Amino acid sequence: MKNVFFISDRTGITTEGLGNALLSQFESVDFQKEVIPFVDTIYKADQAIVRINNRYNKDSIKPIVLTSIINPTIRNKFKLPHVFHIDFFESFVPSLEAEIGISSSLTLGKSHGIIDEDKYYKRIEAIDFSLYNDDGMTVKDFDQADVILIGVSRVGKTPTCLYLAINYGIKAANYPLVENDLKQDKLPKALIAYHSKLFGLTIDVDRLHHIRTNRLPNSEYSSITTCTKEINTAEHLMRTYDIPYLNTSKKSIEEISVGIMHSINLTKKF
Amino acid sequence: MKNVFFISDRTGITTEGLGNALLSQFESVDFQKEVIPFVDTIYKADQAIVRINNRYNKDSIKPIVLTSIINPTIRNKFKLPHVFHIDFFESFVPSLEAEIGISSSLTLGKSHGIIDEDKYYKRIEAIDFSLYNDDGMTVKDFDQADVILIGVSRVGKTPTCLYLAINYGIKAANYPLVENDLKQDKLPKALIAYHSKLFGLTIDVDRLHHIRTNRLPNSEYSSITTCTKEINTAEHLMRTYDIPYLNTSKKSIEEISVGIMHSINLTKKF
Repeated sequence: MKNVFFISDRTGITTEGLGNALLSQFESVDFQKEVIPFVDTIYKADQAIVRINNRYNKDSIKPIVLTSIINPTIRNKFKLPHVFHIDFFESFVPSLEAEIGISSSLTLGKSHGIIDEDKYYKRIEAIDFSLYNDDGMTVKDFDQADVILIGVSRVGKTPTCLYLAINYGIKAANYPLVENDLKQDKLPKALIAYHSKLFGLTIDVDRLHHIRTNRLPNSEYSSITTCTKEINTAEHLMRTYDIPYLNTSKKSIEEISVGIMHSINLTKKF
Repeated sequence: MKNVFFISDRTGITTEGLGNALLSQFESVDFQKEVIPFVDTIYKADQAIVRINNRYNKDSIKPIVLTSIINPTIRNKFKLPHVFHIDFFESFVPSLEAEIGISSSLTLGKSHGIIDEDKYYKRIEAIDFSLYNDDGMTVKDFDQADVILIGVSRVGKTPTCLYLAINYGIKAANYPLVENDLKQDKLPKALIAYHSKLFGLTIDVDRLHHIRTNRLPNSEYSSITTCTKEINTAEHLMRTYDIPYLNTSKKSIEEISVGIMHSINLTKKF
């Protein structure tokens, strides 16, 4: 067992992200992780050190402390003999300074703060858009969409749309392919005008059966027969109409979102 | 001007996050950024290098290439004489190996992939919950909420609930304090039973006026008078009922979300 602290002068989101990616390379180790955000004063650093020391005094295991703290005086507080410490800024800023040829500004809050009004509105607008254009509730704003996701129920459309909106300011609508659409074996009328914006999501039968069973056990909706039929018809539709698509079965929301963006060249809007 | 490439064998989200945090320390430099995800084969590395070289051949400026690639053969492809290259794994894995005392597994896909069924369902359930419990549409499931955000219209409740659900699997409901609630100067009846789950969001008058004007210009809704009255009454309510709250004016969705979690000790559910 190893205690790990992710400590940041901001939200800690990036620190935790890189930290988790690094630690995931040591699968056999049981890491007890704790995130301490907003450590931007000596006082808060001292408070964090109390937490670290309490843990160390309890189990005598040298803790791993991964920090992203811009102010050297604050981050140096974590250089303690009983601590394994890495700071992500300290590790890279000097070599970047040398390469770029100017000194860093040592300022806080540039990466996750509101910097730009225009960017703020783009983000909020995209979130509102994804909420109003979820699940085929309306198609009247589809002309404003950056992408329209199609697929059977529970393939992952809604979480993906929300993720794209929140993290990339992308206006993502979604339209579910329901029984009636699938029966026709034709692209639903409402979508024809937006063919170039369509992106399909598909899924393995077993996985869909599993997800739907978790929602509505022992229903026709969740049966292997229904899942198979819906998926086959939906994929046939996507191939017939030359709509790019990806399989969500083994993918996280992050992977699906970035996969779509990469596939059709969408980029962050803010 | 400097060209920057964020290259990852997975989504690139963390690579871009840390990269942006580092580059934000050099405010005066105009960085032209490009993210290339899913570079997990030699072939894809070669394709990425073509993009890098094209840019270099055009402007003769040495590009900065920040990578997170676990496979050494693939990441070493980016060690080129005309490139400034840093790999985040390479920089830290060796010292972590020494500290932890075991070799890393050099395996892909541990940080943003679906690992665990239970975690997947927790996340999806939280997203569904936040959608069904948005904007006071219903209060019947408030007993299942991890947190219930209250505040005036356009203070940031919905984006925060969605962010908490998607990124932390936290079941966050929200309840808008509308004119009728505020007139009473009492906690809305529907919320009394859930007092311990309430968290308030507030905002500066100018900022709210600005946001509401962007939505409904020249309306009573967006007027300074209405904004002032609503904010004052809402804050008075939060103080009277001892509800923790924070001001969202200068904060990003990430900062608001982590601020709430930190303040009331909520942790990631998956």
